[in-house]
Amino acid sequence: MRTVYVNGEYLPETEATVSIFDRGFLMADGVYEVTSVLGGRLIDFDGHLARLERSLSELDMLKPAVFDDLLDIHRELVRVNGITDGLVYLQVTRGSDGDRDFVFPDPETTEPTLVLFTQSKPGLADSPAAKTGIRVIGIDDLRWGRRDIKTVQLLYPSMGKMMAKAAGADDAWMIEDGHVTEGTSNNAYIVKGNRIITRHLSNDILHGITRAAVLRMASEAQMQVEERAFTMEEAKAADEAFVTSASAFVMPVVEIDGATLGDGTPGPVAARLREIYLEESRKAAV
Amino acid sequence: MRTVYVNGEYLPETEATVSIFDRGFLMADGVYEVTSVLGGRLIDFDGHLARLERSLSELDMLKPAVFDDLLDIHRELVRVNGITDGLVYLQVTRGSDGDRDFVFPDPETTEPTLVLFTQSKPGLADSPAAKTGIRVIGIDDLRWGRRDIKTVQLLYPSMGKMMAKAAGADDAWMIEDGHVTEGTSNNAYIVKGNRIITRHLSNDILHGITRAAVLRMASEAQMQVEERAFTMEEAKAADEAFVTSASAFVMPVVEIDGATLGDGTPGPVAARLREIYLEESRKAAV
Repeated sequence: MRTVYVNGEYLPETEATVSIFDRGFLMADGVYEVTSVLGGRLIDFDGHLARLERSLSELDMLKPAVFDDLLDIHRELVRVNGITDGLVYLQVTRGSDGDRDFVFPDPETTEPTLVLFTQSKPGLADSPAAKTGIRVIGIDDLRWGRRDIKTVQLLYPSMGKMMAKAAGADDAWMIEDGHVTEGTSNNAYIVKGNRIITRHLSNDILHGITRAAVLRMASEAQMQVEERAFTMEEAKAADEAFVTSASAFVMPVVEIDGATLGDGTPGPVAARLREIYLEESRKAAV
Repeated sequence: MRTVYVNGEYLPETEATVSIFDRGFLMADGVYEVTSVLGGRLIDFDGHLARLERSLSELDMLKPAVFDDLLDIHRELVRVNGITDGLVYLQVTRGSDGDRDFVFPDPETTEPTLVLFTQSKPGLADSPAAKTGIRVIGIDDLRWGRRDIKTVQLLYPSMGKMMAKAAGADDAWMIEDGHVTEGTSNNAYIVKGNRIITRHLSNDILHGITRAAVLRMASEAQMQVEERAFTMEEAKAADEAFVTSASAFVMPVVEIDGATLGDGTPGPVAARLREIYLEESRKAAV
C-alpha cells in the first residue's frame, strides 16, 4: 500500500481523495510535474520545480503554501515508499470553494489542492525498449493552444496512446500544419547527417526539462542541434529518431508510420545521448 | 447542506469525494451535462441524456451501470434539495484502476465514476441580465479540436470568462480563423435583417441542446435561420445578437467588443425566442 500526499497529509493511497468540487476534477484546472527517481534520488528536480512555478504563474494560480518544502515532501514519499527507481507525480489544482463556477474562486479564501504520489519502476533506466527502440505513428494534433503549460488536459494525448496501441505501435507523434509538434508525453527528435533536429520552443509544445538537459549535453559533446519544425516525410527519411521525457529519458525511435529508420535498431546518436543524460543526471540527482 | 450523488450514494456535499487516481482528476478524462430545473421539473432532459450517450461513445467510455436510472436520480436530487429553479450537474469519468497511466484502464474491471449535484438558482428564468442584455468580447479560440464532445477540459473557457471579467464584459466569444465559434459556455447567434445566423454544427462547436430546440422553434415561428460561420465584423454590425445555453436559455447580447448593437437594448428576435423557448420548455419539462 503506497503512502501518498494530499494537502499536508500523508495517507494510504486508498484513502486519498479530493472533493468532487475540486476544479481539477470539474474543469481540468490544474497542472502537474513528473520527476524521475534513480537510485533513490530525484532527477532534474530543480528544473521540474521551476517549470511548475511557471505553469502556475501562466494560469494565475497560487503556489501551494508548502512550495518551498516540495523537495522534502518528494524525499519523504520516496523514503516511506522505498522507491529506488520510479517517479514522483505532483499535481496542483486551483482547489475548490465548494461549488462550480467558470469564474476562478477567490484566491484569498481558496487554497490550491496539492497531491503527490510515487510509482515504483524497478530498473527504470534499463528499460528493454531502450535497447530495441519504439515505433510511432503520426496523428493529428488536436490539443489546445497552450501546450507550454503542463496542464492535466491529457485526454487527447491519452487517446493518442490508444490510437498507437490500436495500430500496433508504441506511441504517437502529433502533427499540426504538416509538421510534427511532439509525442503524446515526450519531445520528438530526428537525426539527419550530423544534425539533431527538434522543434523550437513555443506555445505549441511542452518545454521539456529533459529536452533542455539533453540539448545542453548534446552541445557540450560538440553535436550539432537545429531547433526547427520538421515534417513526417523528413522524419521517415531520417537516419535515426528519438524522444525525450522525464521518465523515458532518451528513448530511440526505430519506426515512424511504418517506415523503418536505418537498420531498424537504435541509432548511435540516441544511444550516446541516453548514456550521457543518464550519467550526468545521476551525478546531479538530489 | 446539499445532498449530492457519487457512485450510487447520496451524500452530504462536504463528504463527496473521488479518488486522487480518478482519471477525471488526473487527465480530464470525463464528460458532463447540465440540465436546468424550472418549477421543480427538468428542461430538455432527453436531449441532455442523448448527448451524454454520444459523448461517452465518442470517447469509448462505458455508460454508468445506472444510465437508465438517471432521470430518477435527477428527480431525487431535485426533491431532496428542494430545488424549484436551478440546475442539475452530471459528470461521468473513466474512473480509476488505482494508478495513473495514459493507456485507458480495462473497462471490464474499471467502473466509470458518476457524480451529480444540484445548484439552486431561484428565479433562474427571470434573470435581470435577460432584460438588459450582456456584453461580450472576442478572444482567440485556443481549445482542442473536439468541442462537439462535452468534456471537462474547461480550463480555457474558464480563462475566457476571466478575460471577459477583466475587460469589464460578461462573457467572451471565441474566434478561430477569423470566425466566431461560440461563447465560453454557450452557442452564439447574430440577427441581420430577417435572418438568424449561427455557426453550423461540426467538431468546432458544442452541439447545444438549447441550440437545437431554439432553431426548431425559430423555424416553426417562420423565422429564417442560416447555419454558417460569421466574423466579428459581421457580428459588430448585426441588428442584434444572443447566446443560448441550458442555464441561460436565450440571452440577449447588446455589446460586442465595445460595439453597441442597435439601441443597446435586447432585440425583438432574442426576446421573442426566449419567450417561446421558456414557454415550450416548461410545457415539455419532466
